[in-house]
Amino acid sequence: MEKKCIGIDIGGTSVKLGIFETNGVLLEKWEVPTRKEENGKNILPDVAASIKAKLQEMGIALADVAGAGMGVPGPVLPDGFVEVCVNLGWRNMNPQKELSELLDGIPVKSGNDANVAALGEMWQGGGKGYRDIVMVTLGTGVGGGVIIDERIIAGRHGLGGEIGHIHVRDEETEHCNCGGVGCLEQVASATGIAREARRKMAASDEPSAMRQFGDKINAKNVLDCAKAGDKLANEVMKVVSHYLGLALSQISLTVDPEAFVIGGGVSRAGKFLTDMVQKDYDRFSTISSNKAVLKLAELGNDAGIYGAARQVL
Amino acid sequence: MEKKCIGIDIGGTSVKLGIFETNGVLLEKWEVPTRKEENGKNILPDVAASIKAKLQEMGIALADVAGAGMGVPGPVLPDGFVEVCVNLGWRNMNPQKELSELLDGIPVKSGNDANVAALGEMWQGGGKGYRDIVMVTLGTGVGGGVIIDERIIAGRHGLGGEIGHIHVRDEETEHCNCGGVGCLEQVASATGIAREARRKMAASDEPSAMRQFGDKINAKNVLDCAKAGDKLANEVMKVVSHYLGLALSQISLTVDPEAFVIGGGVSRAGKFLTDMVQKDYDRFSTISSNKAVLKLAELGNDAGIYGAARQVL
Repeated sequence: MEKKCIGIDIGGTSVKLGIFETNGVLLEKWEVPTRKEENGKNILPDVAASIKAKLQEMGIALADVAGAGMGVPGPVLPDGFVEVCVNLGWRNMNPQKELSELLDGIPVKSGNDANVAALGEMWQGGGKGYRDIVMVTLGTGVGGGVIIDERIIAGRHGLGGEIGHIHVRDEETEHCNCGGVGCLEQVASATGIAREARRKMAASDEPSAMRQFGDKINAKNVLDCAKAGDKLANEVMKVVSHYLGLALSQISLTVDPEAFVIGGGVSRAGKFLTDMVQKDYDRFSTISSNKAVLKLAELGNDAGIYGAARQVL
Repeated sequence: MEKKCIGIDIGGTSVKLGIFETNGVLLEKWEVPTRKEENGKNILPDVAASIKAKLQEMGIALADVAGAGMGVPGPVLPDGFVEVCVNLGWRNMNPQKELSELLDGIPVKSGNDANVAALGEMWQGGGKGYRDIVMVTLGTGVGGGVIIDERIIAGRHGLGGEIGHIHVRDEETEHCNCGGVGCLEQVASATGIAREARRKMAASDEPSAMRQFGDKINAKNVLDCAKAGDKLANEVMKVVSHYLGLALSQISLTVDPEAFVIGGGVSRAGKFLTDMVQKDYDRFSTISSNKAVLKLAELGNDAGIYGAARQVL
């Protein structure tokens, strides 16, 4: 029997799980709730029990599983150690070691969830066919993952791919969650785009379709207005694209990937967004015309289980 | 007999060569002139002949050489192909393949000279003991090299570690050699530091020890004046350090190395420079206090032959 592999994506509300063929075919996916009480001590036993039950249901023995990969919402050190995982209540533990013990010793490998999602997109998503990609996730925040030679660059302190906190904007005055000022996340996340729109509306009397949403405006509203040709909304997106293009050029001149894969809720704006960012990226990357292409992510919320599973191959 | 390895650093004026033990001990180093005429067609035959003569002199058979590594002053693609190497006149050739043939088929591996120097510093220089470093070479220009897990991140288009062309300064108006505006190289290279000093002198009437050098001022003059407490010179270095610290933070949030190794002529300013840059790097890296340390390069002009040799191990 061909070996299977398991992908586990641990989120603050639910744990997503998937059973894969080693060629990337997803056989089965399901979820279990994340029990965060008592410092999240039930999370891994719940995951292990659910995996064992599912395997039995599918008639797969643990001996036929090559391993299980796990994405964790926080920094993971090279040996799998997690100092702190705020969303789960975990502190100073090695979840990959613990889960391996709970799964009768099969190999378990863990990584930061954003990095793992990047690996998933490289394997079976928008980055399929490439070995070196950088994923940029534009969601509530801005996350990222750097994949070189099909491996995650996690970094020595778990900061690899933390591109949302690259300082890009000198004239910013508000603080980012990280304590910095002018981070990419402050302007290019869904939250940041909405904030930029509120600022632009407040700073001018210009009529704009954005005004119907008032202070409740969200990133999707801004992008819809921009696509429909609204001038002020396009000015907002011009600012966003400027800083995104700048950050991509900085990343290219460090690791020079084959492709950037843009994901997260904001990326639903599709080619409208990537065409815009491509222009700014080119403008800041004059040293060579031969450089990374921009692609859209394809796996959505499943990127995490794909990438988690890919870690053990 | 313990195998040896050979390091070759091809420069525009001379080729540096070294014979090493595989543990990093340099047994012998020498140079040959770089004959650039006729599109540099003699360079590799000259190198091969010189290596064969030296090995004979030392009583080492080619069969006892594990391989030869080469640093080339231009972008090198993953398979060793060089599209163009302006300084040598090379175009569309594969120097590692050619040199291997000239050396009776021993393995030859090539890399960009800045990347190779970074690998050398990791192996036996300022980055010794680390596996992940980023080297920053502050010379006439600003070069760099990214080493992760003891391997060069050359990039898919040869742009890996081209950190001198990271855009950092929005208010710059002059163009960089790369065609961009506001590149790190424009402010943090020796040339850039001297230019910043000329600008600061022209923009104020403030007395300064820098004025004795007039328009001929160089980076060493600026740094000497700054160390001696000259106010205007310290203002120049504050600008330089600001942008260097910014670029290091951007690099950290992409690949998160264990250490930055600062080299090149400007780095002779030593701890005065690294202490200054460390503060700015910290200021832009608020997300974590646990991050890369700044070290000084130690191998000087020999970094290239060390790193070249290390490539074949």
